[in-house]
Amino acid sequence: MPGPLDGLKVLDLSRFIAGPHCGMMLGDLGADVVKVERPRRGDDTRALEPHVEGESLYFMVFNRNKRSITLNFRDPRAHGLLREMVKQADVLIENFRPGTMEKMGCGWDDLHAINPRLIMARISGYGQQGSMAAEPCFDGIAQATSGLMEITGDPDGPPTMGGTFLVDYATALYASIGILAAVEHRHKTGKGQMVDASLMGSAVSMLVTAIPEQAMLGRAMSRVGNRDRYSAPAQTFRAADGVWLHMVAGNDAHFPRLTRIMKRPDLLEDPRFATLEARMRNIPAIEAVVGEWIAGLPADEVVALLRQAELPAARIATLPDLLANPYMREARQIVETQHPKAGTVTTHGLTVRLSDTPGEIRHPAPMLGQHTDEVLGEWLGMTPSDVGALRDDGTV
Amino acid sequence: MPGPLDGLKVLDLSRFIAGPHCGMMLGDLGADVVKVERPRRGDDTRALEPHVEGESLYFMVFNRNKRSITLNFRDPRAHGLLREMVKQADVLIENFRPGTMEKMGCGWDDLHAINPRLIMARISGYGQQGSMAAEPCFDGIAQATSGLMEITGDPDGPPTMGGTFLVDYATALYASIGILAAVEHRHKTGKGQMVDASLMGSAVSMLVTAIPEQAMLGRAMSRVGNRDRYSAPAQTFRAADGVWLHMVAGNDAHFPRLTRIMKRPDLLEDPRFATLEARMRNIPAIEAVVGEWIAGLPADEVVALLRQAELPAARIATLPDLLANPYMREARQIVETQHPKAGTVTTHGLTVRLSDTPGEIRHPAPMLGQHTDEVLGEWLGMTPSDVGALRDDGTV
Repeated sequence: MPGPLDGLKVLDLSRFIAGPHCGMMLGDLGADVVKVERPRRGDDTRALEPHVEGESLYFMVFNRNKRSITLNFRDPRAHGLLREMVKQADVLIENFRPGTMEKMGCGWDDLHAINPRLIMARISGYGQQGSMAAEPCFDGIAQATSGLMEITGDPDGPPTMGGTFLVDYATALYASIGILAAVEHRHKTGKGQMVDASLMGSAVSMLVTAIPEQAMLGRAMSRVGNRDRYSAPAQTFRAADGVWLHMVAGNDAHFPRLTRIMKRPDLLEDPRFATLEARMRNIPAIEAVVGEWIAGLPADEVVALLRQAELPAARIATLPDLLANPYMREARQIVETQHPKAGTVTTHGLTVRLSDTPGEIRHPAPMLGQHTDEVLGEWLGMTPSDVGALRDDGTV
Repeated sequence: MPGPLDGLKVLDLSRFIAGPHCGMMLGDLGADVVKVERPRRGDDTRALEPHVEGESLYFMVFNRNKRSITLNFRDPRAHGLLREMVKQADVLIENFRPGTMEKMGCGWDDLHAINPRLIMARISGYGQQGSMAAEPCFDGIAQATSGLMEITGDPDGPPTMGGTFLVDYATALYASIGILAAVEHRHKTGKGQMVDASLMGSAVSMLVTAIPEQAMLGRAMSRVGNRDRYSAPAQTFRAADGVWLHMVAGNDAHFPRLTRIMKRPDLLEDPRFATLEARMRNIPAIEAVVGEWIAGLPADEVVALLRQAELPAARIATLPDLLANPYMREARQIVETQHPKAGTVTTHGLTVRLSDTPGEIRHPAPMLGQHTDEVLGEWLGMTPSDVGALRDDGTV
């Protein structure tokens, strides 16, 4: 299936998650993404457990729809090869520590001079400039520094990290947006530009009202467990069979429907619960009433009743539950691809779908250097013996 | 400052977070975003607490760089006005329940026929098609159903919701990517397409290796608290002064540096800790050693030592800490804008930065219907008295 970015040529020098997920987004949408890795070890995440037939699941999850070539950046000839490839690229993605590309003669000024149409996406912890630019950063540090950890978890427990690398994912998506916006702008000017995406900026962008509440009202947002911050009741409860479920019936459109299926019209007359404003002042009380009702029924029955009333509700899925959920296959949110070594690989599907050019999973994550000959042939006109000589020298 | 999307005309019919954050991204990048709201109440989030001078902070956070007009969709003349505006729009964003736009004569087929260049972004819980399409969904439901709640929180505690609406945010970003990819494709064909972004697909895309681990190895990912899943030690600890900090020193490049600043070269000789693989089999033991060291020093001293060794580390910021962090101002991650009623509004800055066309915060979130006259004049050539007549009829 064609993708909307067919023909876009991307060099992806990035490692870990934020860069690779960005490159994969472009590849999922049809771009020709060439992942550039170190010879022998490649992206550090190739070493991360678990492996299947020697291939890291972690690497597979962030690198489908890419081809892999190797370049040894300790060898200045590799810098030259990269600059040759840049002449033909639309986009370059990197997430080295700021300054690293400059040391290779491949900073923004260098690459922009070689190819004024190039868009260079630079992903870092704190952005490319300023007093913190050189500091190392990971997702967890960004969650800690931004306040995201402070506002996650039980009010009586410690600050809690998200169970996934939510800042890395968000940064990958913001970088993708920046790249595509730069592609659009290039149609007007013929010129590429530098896209600066940071973990810290991405983390800070996801704080809902925490920043203005603190700055304008002096109110410090903190942890509320699984409660919605803006409506009640919206909470996680445990049903009679011990199964956890999450339900949302907090706003004034929802709450009357909840009282109907609970057969508790009296709650709508109760001044503690009649309006959203009142319920927000009496959260423990309304949660106690709803929790008691749910504790008397099996989870599936509660969820069915709530859904019949068009109230959002769901069991809290374990991973086996997720894989068994027929919706996930029907909607192609979970799909299979074939990997030459690892066999059938199960991953998430294409996330955003375009009606005319949906794109497809054209290939699973590449093996290290699988496409060095092919890509250097296509992009630079090199023959197999040219590439063989570079390989003998340790340049690729 | 010019933005890369200057000139792009966007109609944003969406409410809550996932749609509005998408529209705001386009506006931050320069697009002319017109938010279309119901007369009188507008977006439901205008009613959410807290308010400053009657303006909801929640609404402000997701709707800067937009203009607001009102259209009463209970009046078929409003559907006609919307269709007239669609003739001139590049992008329409909506997150009604699937089927709602069709009932207004504004489904994809209708709008595509009116303006073949239109890109229509549809945001929903489960996607536009399939057995679940009509089900209501919110961020928390997607966190529950996708497994994100199952993998968040303490291993001995309950499934935990992220402290922010991470699925809403991710969906907004995926939708933005889909829109911009469709804009790019339109340069080749002259035709727009429909972009389908779902909370559930976005949630499932952020599970790291959980899906292949379950499907290929039968291993159910669960909660690990604040621990990194793939390296050790990388964890949250409490320092001697009671302050929480997060540190990452788990991989084989990092760990030797940690042992140096701990003055514990013996750890590198210890077969339990010498390699990443060994440490992953002895996580409680290595965390106990590191935790004991940290518990003997004030947090700032630990963080300084770790940073001197180029190891990622940070205090876990509270909201007052975040607002006081000089980096946030220096890097313009937190900025001020002036609102005509609410005064100085403090929010996150522009998240992704482009070197030539960075865009800017041109205006804060609009008041309800603030730009109805202006926009209907510009887009449809209406006079103030035309709009006045529509207003008298309750159409706008």
